[in-house]
Amino acid sequence: MTLDDSWFSEPYDLTGSAFSLKIKAKLHDEQSQFQHIEIYETQTYGRLMVFDGCVMLTSMDNFIYHEMMSHTALQSHANPQDVLIIGGGDCGTLREVLKHDSVKRCVQVDIDERVTRVTEMFFPELCDSNNDKRAELLFEDGIHYVANCKAEQFDIVIIDSTDPVGQAARLFGREFYSDCQRITRNGGVLVAQSESPLKQLDLIKSMSNNMSSAGYSNTHTVEFPQSCYPTGWWSCTLAGKSNDLKELRELPLSVATKYYTTDSHRGSLTMRPFMKIALQD
Amino acid sequence: MTLDDSWFSEPYDLTGSAFSLKIKAKLHDEQSQFQHIEIYETQTYGRLMVFDGCVMLTSMDNFIYHEMMSHTALQSHANPQDVLIIGGGDCGTLREVLKHDSVKRCVQVDIDERVTRVTEMFFPELCDSNNDKRAELLFEDGIHYVANCKAEQFDIVIIDSTDPVGQAARLFGREFYSDCQRITRNGGVLVAQSESPLKQLDLIKSMSNNMSSAGYSNTHTVEFPQSCYPTGWWSCTLAGKSNDLKELRELPLSVATKYYTTDSHRGSLTMRPFMKIALQD
Repeated sequence: MTLDDSWFSEPYDLTGSAFSLKIKAKLHDEQSQFQHIEIYETQTYGRLMVFDGCVMLTSMDNFIYHEMMSHTALQSHANPQDVLIIGGGDCGTLREVLKHDSVKRCVQVDIDERVTRVTEMFFPELCDSNNDKRAELLFEDGIHYVANCKAEQFDIVIIDSTDPVGQAARLFGREFYSDCQRITRNGGVLVAQSESPLKQLDLIKSMSNNMSSAGYSNTHTVEFPQSCYPTGWWSCTLAGKSNDLKELRELPLSVATKYYTTDSHRGSLTMRPFMKIALQD
Repeated sequence: MTLDDSWFSEPYDLTGSAFSLKIKAKLHDEQSQFQHIEIYETQTYGRLMVFDGCVMLTSMDNFIYHEMMSHTALQSHANPQDVLIIGGGDCGTLREVLKHDSVKRCVQVDIDERVTRVTEMFFPELCDSNNDKRAELLFEDGIHYVANCKAEQFDIVIIDSTDPVGQAARLFGREFYSDCQRITRNGGVLVAQSESPLKQLDLIKSMSNNMSSAGYSNTHTVEFPQSCYPTGWWSCTLAGKSNDLKELRELPLSVATKYYTTDSHRGSLTMRPFMKIALQD
């Protein structure tokens, strides 16, 4: 059967699949300097944010992505104090990072201020920590920020980017990772969203190789369900700077989660066999 | 944008979402005594099997479902020898069960022989073990089979069913679980596919409660990605008969998997916090 225009559909050539949500209303539509931003009210997934036709998040299931992009990295570090987020303008990752009492400073660098302003309007719950005194929200080019940053300023660098097309493609390359490695202290961790483990293992392998050749000592990919993204299955790839990514702390009491558990994180240190094989050299 | 008829789409009212696959050709279409069976060649997911408009499996991602429905139960048992599969006519679960050397007999009871015959034609890889001398393929009503089975015949009962609508709804009820409990030996395990953890926690809770009131000592839900099912996230719910479901064996060497690992299974013994809260009484 065909889906009519009461649905928002995102067909994705690379995966040959499409995900659709039944729509109640369009709430917002704007062309920012960088992208076309749309907000919909859906029937069952709460609100939906779309950039250039691609689903960015929904109210209902963004907790998984944001928890995995933050706690997976922070729990792999002995004492994370200074955190940098590249992208992440919806502020959901920032909110999770700031649940950690150990964090003294979290800098978020998104090129498009409109993403944050629109999120404040339509997903205020994601912006709960924007006024935390440890948060610094910058609106500028993340690649430029990292290139001009002094060495060894951060314990954690989180690349919360869009897909590797257009401007964002450089966020998946060796040169950018080299700058990230340079500004990270020993024992530090890089984490980047790394697309679908079902259909994009070539990309994940290339990201891992780029991180290794940028000087990171270790890489590891963790997968998680993400209903609204292509194939419904997503991943983040971690890289350690003199950190083997195997020593996990118990989750601090200050960090309440809905999806992430330390036990499941430990369980994921053994990668799924089909991924392990595909990511081997 | 709308999706035209070059896509196969399954909209699902309950989740308010739809999953679609780009189609190359329709390979088969028949009305069996029990359901409308269609087979498609997709662009990127291999072959697709559809019953009454609902996606049953694809060549590309069925390994996850079949491994989780089998190994999760068998690895929770000290020495699984006799296994019963209710439903499962595509034989993928049977194939995984028979990878375990400890298994001496696996009975598969599907009401619709056409499912198995069509699978043999279009997904022969799933039928690799149909001629194993330990396999018994019966084509009859699973509810009737279980009701008429002698007590304590099986170590593992696997309910590999369709969604809880029509005939299959009884496979989610207390009465059926009572019969499953009766025909299971002490130390035994029941496992049933239990739909989407994102959108059907009420159903999962009702299944768990039904299993408990049917005399099982313990229940536990394990979630896993399943790209082609509604929300892209699926689950199975286990129940133990004098078995706390916490003692896992190391995976036997005879069992090669692509998705399942004992470590991830151990990690899932701590349930996701949002699921744990929803499933509490």
